[in-house]
Amino acid sequence: MNHIRIVLVNTSHPGNIGAAARAMMTMGLSRLYLVRPKEFPHHEATARAAGADELLANAVIADTLEHAIADCELVFGTSARSRHLPWPLLHPRECAERVAAHSNQQIAIVFGNERIGLQNEELMLCNYHVRIPTNENYSSLNLAAAVQILAYEIAVKHNEALANVSPETLFPLATNEELTGLYHHFEKVFVELDFLKPGAPKLLMQRVKRLFNRVQLERDELNLLRGMLSAMEKKL
Amino acid sequence: MNHIRIVLVNTSHPGNIGAAARAMMTMGLSRLYLVRPKEFPHHEATARAAGADELLANAVIADTLEHAIADCELVFGTSARSRHLPWPLLHPRECAERVAAHSNQQIAIVFGNERIGLQNEELMLCNYHVRIPTNENYSSLNLAAAVQILAYEIAVKHNEALANVSPETLFPLATNEELTGLYHHFEKVFVELDFLKPGAPKLLMQRVKRLFNRVQLERDELNLLRGMLSAMEKKL
Repeated sequence: MNHIRIVLVNTSHPGNIGAAARAMMTMGLSRLYLVRPKEFPHHEATARAAGADELLANAVIADTLEHAIADCELVFGTSARSRHLPWPLLHPRECAERVAAHSNQQIAIVFGNERIGLQNEELMLCNYHVRIPTNENYSSLNLAAAVQILAYEIAVKHNEALANVSPETLFPLATNEELTGLYHHFEKVFVELDFLKPGAPKLLMQRVKRLFNRVQLERDELNLLRGMLSAMEKKL
Repeated sequence: MNHIRIVLVNTSHPGNIGAAARAMMTMGLSRLYLVRPKEFPHHEATARAAGADELLANAVIADTLEHAIADCELVFGTSARSRHLPWPLLHPRECAERVAAHSNQQIAIVFGNERIGLQNEELMLCNYHVRIPTNENYSSLNLAAAVQILAYEIAVKHNEALANVSPETLFPLATNEELTGLYHHFEKVFVELDFLKPGAPKLLMQRVKRLFNRVQLERDELNLLRGMLSAMEKKL
């Protein structure tokens, strides 16, 4: 993902720069650009970067947003408010899709100042605006938290093939035949326990089947249950 | 989303509690539970909450995770590492889907200590484990950043306003407290059956918990299992 840069414009608090670097690095992004940071380098930035300080050491400092994105083909500007600018407004997930669709281009995701965000002239340098949906009554997203969400969406999309592997399928499941054997075993033990009367309505066995069919028993789990039933039979 | 609580266990840095509260509130979550916070209340928590301090004022303090989730039907534990516990592991997006499908239940999303995460006994109280995918070489996600990502995924899913009622929500589910009672009952009977040696490695009970946490037991099903165990005890 080396073609993607995060650009922080006019950041006031150096701690937020460090936290943004940490957020980027957890998601596999490494290129940080800083446009007129108020204080940088700064010990608070280093402290909050928590090991992602190589991103700070390699950060590119620019005096204008135009310079920071000069070689970019695709620029996304983040905006908390819905502006009067008639610009295409994307959800973070749509932004990630477009990023993934342009893997051979230089891409920038731009974040404004903590308090006032990106200014209109800066937003007009962008191809798209991205708005992170927030609580109507409290939209005060921290700068590094906003970076974290966008970086996360981009990484998820990037790694999608991997992310869709469900670990629930990693262990071999019991076959239908094995399940039938388990249910017979349950029924036999239930009768011996006087928990089930032979000939009585089969509701109890129906419920047992519903339960264990629903969970998609693994073979080892089925063997555990049969072991329990055999131990019961032995004692009886 | 008032049925969803965020539970922070053993948090070391009060600033992270404040930042987590802010992350929650931006996404419309308001119920914060703190299990043995190292320092709370604390001025750093209030400072980092940045206006979300009503969440801090209303935070519930608990002395154990079990108390914090006693009335929960669905518990997700976050885990950075892939543990040796063979628990169902979800992607944050899958977690959000399951949260959305259980809108009438008490749900907890649990986060461990900054440095060591959740411990095995805590993870075993959960129905599912959630792992936020991170950079293999740098997985040091800040606690509040992890809360932000989960809260964001839950809010995005919630606002999709999907009206599909899952059949899993039709019957009342067992609470975590009831599950704990079931596991004690299983363990007692297993020992009486010589199926489990007291003091032997707890792998058997781990596997039982994994199985029944995964299926999200309905209360009637739990009572059926307890009925079977009681019938066995009577015979013994």
